[in-house]
Amino acid sequence: MNVTERARVRRIPKRGAYDSETIYAILDAGFLAHVGFCLDGQPFVIPTLYGRSEEKLYLHGSAASRMLRQLETGVPACVSVTLVDGLVLARSAFHHSMNYRSVVAFGTARKIAEPEMKKEALRVISEHVIAGRWNEVRGPYEKELKATSVLEFAIEEASAKIRTGPPVDEEEDYALGVWAGVLPVELEAKSPVPDSRIVDGLEVPQYVLRFRNR
Amino acid sequence: MNVTERARVRRIPKRGAYDSETIYAILDAGFLAHVGFCLDGQPFVIPTLYGRSEEKLYLHGSAASRMLRQLETGVPACVSVTLVDGLVLARSAFHHSMNYRSVVAFGTARKIAEPEMKKEALRVISEHVIAGRWNEVRGPYEKELKATSVLEFAIEEASAKIRTGPPVDEEEDYALGVWAGVLPVELEAKSPVPDSRIVDGLEVPQYVLRFRNR
Repeated sequence: MNVTERARVRRIPKRGAYDSETIYAILDAGFLAHVGFCLDGQPFVIPTLYGRSEEKLYLHGSAASRMLRQLETGVPACVSVTLVDGLVLARSAFHHSMNYRSVVAFGTARKIAEPEMKKEALRVISEHVIAGRWNEVRGPYEKELKATSVLEFAIEEASAKIRTGPPVDEEEDYALGVWAGVLPVELEAKSPVPDSRIVDGLEVPQYVLRFRNR
Repeated sequence: MNVTERARVRRIPKRGAYDSETIYAILDAGFLAHVGFCLDGQPFVIPTLYGRSEEKLYLHGSAASRMLRQLETGVPACVSVTLVDGLVLARSAFHHSMNYRSVVAFGTARKIAEPEMKKEALRVISEHVIAGRWNEVRGPYEKELKATSVLEFAIEEASAKIRTGPPVDEEEDYALGVWAGVLPVELEAKSPVPDSRIVDGLEVPQYVLRFRNR
């Protein structure tokens, strides 16, 4: 990945990484992005689902979405994905921290106009969020495709930040009688809730049951 | 809350809410924000922990943080908090959705200079993330306070978006033999991992064990 001043991790550089492998692994572990753009100097940060294929991220939404209509003009954009892994509880207030994996990616987006490419990008998003779903569902009608905007965000540069492990305290604080450690947190899937109008006898698909926690 | 064009929920307005009660409930349920600002037309979206007191959000970090140094100049900022509650699996690709609660807040930040106010803001952040912790830990030294920037972000206007409930399909699709429903997801705390250098005989505090899932 390219790294200019924009993407360089400046605080605690040892937590920064710029290799595609690390960046893609984080992007593939998440499914929710926060997308930023500026409109007359006003920043907007909007949450959205995404998919990834190589250095391209795919975003979608209503054709009337303010975010997508702004992004498709090719303005500079920033896409952030953050996975929280734990609260780091140190003996001092100062050394409290968070274990996490995050990516901040910079680039610009373009609208995908061609219906078959649009469909393929929607498939990438769907499979990214819940692999196995796309082939089972009723695909998009032409009018549904028309009502949907799909954007391809090409990552120009990106940085990853990762913190793992226990708290790091001041040497003299280790003697304090304060419980310290990590409280791991994880986005976990619960039991699927079938729709009330579901066709009789349908079982919960395996890909829903094995939806991996993130 | 004030609502101008900036904060108005334009897509699916029935999902939008602007009352403080709804907005504060979401902000209090989360602890990770994505903060956006613009620098020469380039948007930056940075993840950070936060705390809330009335319409003020408190952010903190290293005094050398690019984000904080930019925000404290009083530039327009946008703070987004999103809680994912479930994947909404419809019978058609088009009607797939996500259950979530999100807030997009606009405002400006200012630096808190006075040490006692700074400490109080840090307490608010700490208690917001994990209530009960602050009183137990070694408080910040003067040099630690100096190395920490604390910002107060005053929410000028904000909107909340909430989606709950089952998928909503096209009437003719309800007959399809496609499993449909909601896969609930939740950020869940796991078993605490004590630090290897913890003082003998210390038990995991109750406030860590009862850390509520978000």
